[in-house]
Amino acid sequence: MYPNSIKNLVESFKFLPGIGEKTAERLAFCVLGLEDEQVDLFSSSLKNVKKRVHPCSLCNTLTENDFCFVCSDDTRSSDILCVVEDTKTVFLFEKMSMFHGKYHVLNGLISPLDGINPEDIGLNQLLDRIQHEHFQEIIFAFKPSIEGETTALYIKKILDGMDIKITRLASGVPIGADMEYLDGLTLERALTDRKEVE
Amino acid sequence: MYPNSIKNLVESFKFLPGIGEKTAERLAFCVLGLEDEQVDLFSSSLKNVKKRVHPCSLCNTLTENDFCFVCSDDTRSSDILCVVEDTKTVFLFEKMSMFHGKYHVLNGLISPLDGINPEDIGLNQLLDRIQHEHFQEIIFAFKPSIEGETTALYIKKILDGMDIKITRLASGVPIGADMEYLDGLTLERALTDRKEVE
Repeated sequence: MYPNSIKNLVESFKFLPGIGEKTAERLAFCVLGLEDEQVDLFSSSLKNVKKRVHPCSLCNTLTENDFCFVCSDDTRSSDILCVVEDTKTVFLFEKMSMFHGKYHVLNGLISPLDGINPEDIGLNQLLDRIQHEHFQEIIFAFKPSIEGETTALYIKKILDGMDIKITRLASGVPIGADMEYLDGLTLERALTDRKEVE
Repeated sequence: MYPNSIKNLVESFKFLPGIGEKTAERLAFCVLGLEDEQVDLFSSSLKNVKKRVHPCSLCNTLTENDFCFVCSDDTRSSDILCVVEDTKTVFLFEKMSMFHGKYHVLNGLISPLDGINPEDIGLNQLLDRIQHEHFQEIIFAFKPSIEGETTALYIKKILDGMDIKITRLASGVPIGADMEYLDGLTLERALTDRKEVE
């Protein structure tokens, strides 16, 4: 029924998570209304993203070069390492420009229930790096979850005995949150980690 | 900060209506996780859709050929013409396979407030067709709205005096709707158009 190219485009949009038949159809028809240059850019950047983007050979952040923009930046502090679960978190941090150390990107978090074990998330590369560079502090910036806790504890155990300060992001009440919608765990953590008013 | 190809892909997703910065970023990272073949199909169907798809020379339905799949189908009744506001409606009808006549696609509906006047929606092509083919009935399948009513009345006036039955889709309570959420206009129309229980 649909012309072939529209049908293929609908199918393509459906590859993306959260996009079903109806949305895919709506988007495909929207593409027909775009300018030629917009569609050319769209089409070529799809191809380029797969062809050119790969992990940084030092820290795993996605990049088009040998080293990512952080690893190749000499002005960044090499005393402090922020370990994250994916590249998205690196870009999130960089948007805030609050952190001036280095990053290391794991391939996700340990999650035995999903069949993701310590050897699957690229810990060797991280440990290698910690042994060769001289970090004074390592921050775990994982999402607060069982997987995040497990991964943090696992790495901390391996690093036991090394003279490195190991920290994690604070958990607690998000700024602007409505107290009544907070879950129990967050509230409990916020209470345990309460800070003196200065 | 983002590698160039990721940045371009994020910008491309933002061309689509309803997709903002955050969603575009999420989708761009999803593309990195797709198979090569999927991305190839996505990229090429974007290009093809713009290159190959154009309106049917008879009825304006989008097609890759000279004539669309309806106009080139000899088994369809040529007694009855369904006039719609865009190609999407044609495909919607065809999915239901309840209508076996021909279609004609306008370039939208008359809407003076948006600067869309009768001469902008391709009425000449429709009137030409009505004069040369011999339809016994013309159905207006526009969305129930001021623009839909205006367009229907405008065309009906032009066709006055011709021996053609002119109809529109029934309006009323949608099947499965909760009565309490119905708007007043729909309820009024449903009451006016009430039907005898047989």
